[in-house]
Amino acid sequence: MAAEVIVSLDAMGGDAGANLVIPGAAEALTRRPDIRFRLYGDQDVVLPILDRYPKVRDASEFEHCDVAVRMDDKPSQALRQGRRRSSMWRAIEAVKKGEADFAVSAGNTGALTAMAKFCLKTAADIDRPAIAALWPTLRGESVVLDVGGTIGADAPQLFGFAVMGGAMARALFDLRRPTVGLLNIGVEEVKGLEQIREAGQLLREADLPNIAYAGFVEGDDIGKGTVDVVVTEGFAGNIALKTAEGTAKQIANYLRSAMSRTLVARIGYVFARHAFDRLKDKMDPRRGNGGVFLGLNGIVIKSHGGTDPQGFATAVELGYSMVRNRLLEKINSDLSVYHQSHDPAPAGEVAEAGAA
Amino acid sequence: MAAEVIVSLDAMGGDAGANLVIPGAAEALTRRPDIRFRLYGDQDVVLPILDRYPKVRDASEFEHCDVAVRMDDKPSQALRQGRRRSSMWRAIEAVKKGEADFAVSAGNTGALTAMAKFCLKTAADIDRPAIAALWPTLRGESVVLDVGGTIGADAPQLFGFAVMGGAMARALFDLRRPTVGLLNIGVEEVKGLEQIREAGQLLREADLPNIAYAGFVEGDDIGKGTVDVVVTEGFAGNIALKTAEGTAKQIANYLRSAMSRTLVARIGYVFARHAFDRLKDKMDPRRGNGGVFLGLNGIVIKSHGGTDPQGFATAVELGYSMVRNRLLEKINSDLSVYHQSHDPAPAGEVAEAGAA
Repeated sequence: MAAEVIVSLDAMGGDAGANLVIPGAAEALTRRPDIRFRLYGDQDVVLPILDRYPKVRDASEFEHCDVAVRMDDKPSQALRQGRRRSSMWRAIEAVKKGEADFAVSAGNTGALTAMAKFCLKTAADIDRPAIAALWPTLRGESVVLDVGGTIGADAPQLFGFAVMGGAMARALFDLRRPTVGLLNIGVEEVKGLEQIREAGQLLREADLPNIAYAGFVEGDDIGKGTVDVVVTEGFAGNIALKTAEGTAKQIANYLRSAMSRTLVARIGYVFARHAFDRLKDKMDPRRGNGGVFLGLNGIVIKSHGGTDPQGFATAVELGYSMVRNRLLEKINSDLSVYHQSHDPAPAGEVAEAGAA
Repeated sequence: MAAEVIVSLDAMGGDAGANLVIPGAAEALTRRPDIRFRLYGDQDVVLPILDRYPKVRDASEFEHCDVAVRMDDKPSQALRQGRRRSSMWRAIEAVKKGEADFAVSAGNTGALTAMAKFCLKTAADIDRPAIAALWPTLRGESVVLDVGGTIGADAPQLFGFAVMGGAMARALFDLRRPTVGLLNIGVEEVKGLEQIREAGQLLREADLPNIAYAGFVEGDDIGKGTVDVVVTEGFAGNIALKTAEGTAKQIANYLRSAMSRTLVARIGYVFARHAFDRLKDKMDPRRGNGGVFLGLNGIVIKSHGGTDPQGFATAVELGYSMVRNRLLEKINSDLSVYHQSHDPAPAGEVAEAGAA
């Protein structure tokens, strides 16, 4: 294993750009001193900030880029203007060239998805990448994918998500055979669920050594931690993720107003402050920051654009853990185990039958 | 307006059957003394319980039914065995015959959906019914639909959901022109969203007098209460609803364990107890119990199968409010306003272009 992990950073991404990324890198360096950075951005913007963070500067190589993808650029626009020249592209390209172990950007999701696919290409046996999120649960954490990489997925694609999510759970949670569930709704015999049922059949029949298929799960199973990996297509996955974030904020809001409404409640709050701090910490969206692109020839992490340096460092740490735990090798070996033991012909037939 | 509102009850539905429904009816009667019941169920089960609730008995007409749909019956099975004979069917049929103003069942959703569609048929200009839920938000409550009636919806169907949801919001929230948003994910230019974009276009162009179309909303907007009505197809809507329920339970669990972990926190809890009770009340799933079938020739309410009498009474109250506020008339007049002002031909074209 390499002595150092090298991460390439799009220094211009996110609502605050380099004012988020450089302080975030500093925090990541504190947490993981064996990280080195490759920074891409506008020298007039980045270098003055870097001067205020000498430890990051000493651990970095910086390269100037003329173009910065804006948060509201459309993917096609970003590709047209920023391909080969933007800080986002160059950060991803460093992974492709083997100059970095993984890339992190807090830039706009659509542009990052397009560039990551275009530059790194999908891995063998995967025809559609997914974005995976770590979801805090009552049992710890689960991997949920796809949370918005692409919309819609047929049975073989859902199968691929299950394999990749399983590999990620093994890399991060130290599990030998994580449980995997397919997100579904509790209505039987309804049109439109064919691909989910077929994916379940594929998983059951494949009986992979590294995945314990646990059947269908519903929306409320995610937070319970019923399974280690929750598999769904990107539209429903993104709606689930955002809805959960919204509900958490809503309850935090209720709680704040309830605890400040009367003097007695405020006294209670003073006593229970540590308990609330623990709760706040558990619910802190920065703890789960970082969507992972799975299914590409390289690791790219999407950080929330509006996060703070702590949150950005969490996204960097997530990539770090996956590199140290050899995520890509695990995905590739899981996929090849499956493909070696299965004749490609029936898989192709299923793919056609399962297409929406 | 009629002096009394008559509700037909499937007395056998729900995990606890008549032991839920009759006490629930008693609670509903306390809240709304001008309710009368038509009860359908097995006389050997229902009558002994009814004897313990004389006020309900005095406000009810009871009819014996041989068949009770089970919670795990498949919809096709339920229709085959229970059509015309089951307590669920008879409760719905009472609405069709005009013997009841609305029906409530806590029985299984798939069977209820199938029977309600089969018995009541979809309303003119609506080709697909939806289940609408009341969602507690930071601003009060919003209507969210479809939360699982059917899967998938094209642009004209989403348009229909918007009109029906708007009418429900007007009936329940005393709003003149509720705001309506289409649930979407924040990724642009991605395949699969055509029907949502087209529905947005239809709503913008229709410029209905009773709906203020507010554009796309994301999952976290639901809990914020960004709009009065959130429109989506049934799969994503059900995932959102269940995920929010799961998140709320998860946080309640965190909170409980945080507040009981140390003596100081427990002291804080004692002081803040009233605040917590308020919070618990806000988060109480029984407060939002009741999914409403929209788009049928009659009002049918689905209660959670696992709720308690308080929750069942809330579902009854929901139907009561909609009858008193003339929901069906509002839906019909909104739809006819639209259809009178629009040539059917272009709508037909859009329907074809928008089909998934």
